[in-house]
Amino acid sequence: MHLPLQHTTRFRVRFNETDPLGIVWHGHYVTYFEDGREAFGEAFGISYRHIQNNGFLAPVVKCTCEYKSPLRHGDWATVETTFIDSPAAKMIFRYTIHDDSKRIIATGETIQVFTDTNGELMLTNPRFFEDWKTQQGLL
Amino acid sequence: MHLPLQHTTRFRVRFNETDPLGIVWHGHYVTYFEDGREAFGEAFGISYRHIQNNGFLAPVVKCTCEYKSPLRHGDWATVETTFIDSPAAKMIFRYTIHDDSKRIIATGETIQVFTDTNGELMLTNPRFFEDWKTQQGLL
Amino acid sequence: MHLPLQHTTRFRVRFNETDPLGIVWHGHYVTYFEDGREAFGEAFGISYRHIQNNGFLAPVVKCTCEYKSPLRHGDWATVETTFIDSPAAKMIFRYTIHDDSKRIIATGETIQVFTDTNGELMLTNPRFFEDWKTQQGLL
Amino acid sequence: MHLPLQHTTRFRVRFNETDPLGIVWHGHYVTYFEDGREAFGEAFGISYRHIQNNGFLAPVVKCTCEYKSPLRHGDWATVETTFIDSPAAKMIFRYTIHDDSKRIIATGETIQVFTDTNGELMLTNPRFFEDWKTQQGLL
Repeated sequence: MHLPLQHTTRFRVRFNETDPLGIVWHGHYVTYFEDGREAFGEAFGISYRHIQNNGFLAPVVKCTCEYKSPLRHGDWATVETTFIDSPAAKMIFRYTIHDDSKRIIATGETIQVFTDTNGELMLTNPRFFEDWKTQQGLL
Repeated sequence: MHLPLQHTTRFRVRFNETDPLGIVWHGHYVTYFEDGREAFGEAFGISYRHIQNNGFLAPVVKCTCEYKSPLRHGDWATVETTFIDSPAAKMIFRYTIHDDSKRIIATGETIQVFTDTNGELMLTNPRFFEDWKTQQGLL
Repeated sequence: MHLPLQHTTRFRVRFNETDPLGIVWHGHYVTYFEDGREAFGEAFGISYRHIQNNGFLAPVVKCTCEYKSPLRHGDWATVETTFIDSPAAKMIFRYTIHDDSKRIIATGETIQVFTDTNGELMLTNPRFFEDWKTQQGLL
Repeated sequence: MHLPLQHTTRFRVRFNETDPLGIVWHGHYVTYFEDGREAFGEAFGISYRHIQNNGFLAPVVKCTCEYKSPLRHGDWATVETTFIDSPAAKMIFRYTIHDDSKRIIATGETIQVFTDTNGELMLTNPRFFEDWKTQQGLL
């Protein structure tokens, strides 16, 4: 039995992230998701830095975002990042962004694969990732 | 019978679009898709400007991107944008990005809805969009 | 006699702010300066929001940045923002960015003017800005 | 006697480069300057790629921008990039951005130094840069 693999981080909307309609331009949510994923990674020992220190890279191969409600300059919001376990040699994260009134702003998902530092795709999980899963109670 | 509703535009990767791995950061593809959609819109009379001149906005409610192969600083690439017809009050576009060797770099899709300028969602197609579809041979 | 009009805010370098050399791309410092200026503005009641609530805009008319030492992904840094008093109808801010070892990373300056909401340049200080200066002990 | 070391490139303002006031956010001009510098570099054999192929890097150590008039989404503009000769081990470029009515939008300057690939500052011009200057009739 283990706690959900989830982390929440807070951010504030920058002026230059908003568009002529006064709302965050839709492409910037990919940045907020990456902020969430990196904050999760720092908390759980699986950030870009940890992965690279183990000799691997984890390029994003798919990204999805659904937009529910807008954010404006100066708004505070949170991104809740959840690790979704999978038997495949992949890292899957789901994201939910809320504003400070708990309104859902956006949801999304990223899928990453592992490559070595030459960009060669790993067809099975790298050993360090298996170890990480074991530590998290997933294996 | 009508021609496919498709437009292709060419772009070059900027230095500041590439990351420490030397490849385009995955979030910038949302910009390339918007470049493709706007070039399509200019060619077919359905750009942001056309939509706003008709009194509507067309916010993106969903965006998906799949990454097949990387691009690097200075690379030339094309984004092929195709309008996907749908009975719903939505605009759906699909994108394929190729490099100059015709290798597929990324594919994606965006879904837009229509709102009035107060942000009120249109449950049926605005008249101007019906007219546009008729002109394109879709109705 | 008054305290220096200065505010310090902390930020962390995002992955997508770094370039193929592994360091922050030089253009992103304009964002860090704006983060500093807005944090100053929130602390001292002179943010974009305050200025707009008074019926004015404050476009940047000049921006300078000098780069001393690089920042990398994940680095923490501070931007120290100082209001520079001037008799002209302008807002001048100076910035110093330090890393967590107190090394100077960059310095810079922005100059803003005031316009009304139609973009008409103010040749003298708006009343609200005179009032603000008085409150800060500058007049 | 030689032609001025100048190159002009054209660009179009992207939607996501404009801010809630409907104009290009001031920080994006650093990107336009880099577009101009890289287009100059491709035309004159002194781009980032050429410099790196010679074993050097050319980090920007100072950037200045003065804003004269705004640009909006969809506007076409040109950036005229001029190499400013200097006896110091530096590359200095000046930029003028015009809109299609020849109105001056912005001017600016960047200063770059040379380092080796370990980041060690070159106190004198690298040989390849002396050779380039000779080819351009500057030495």
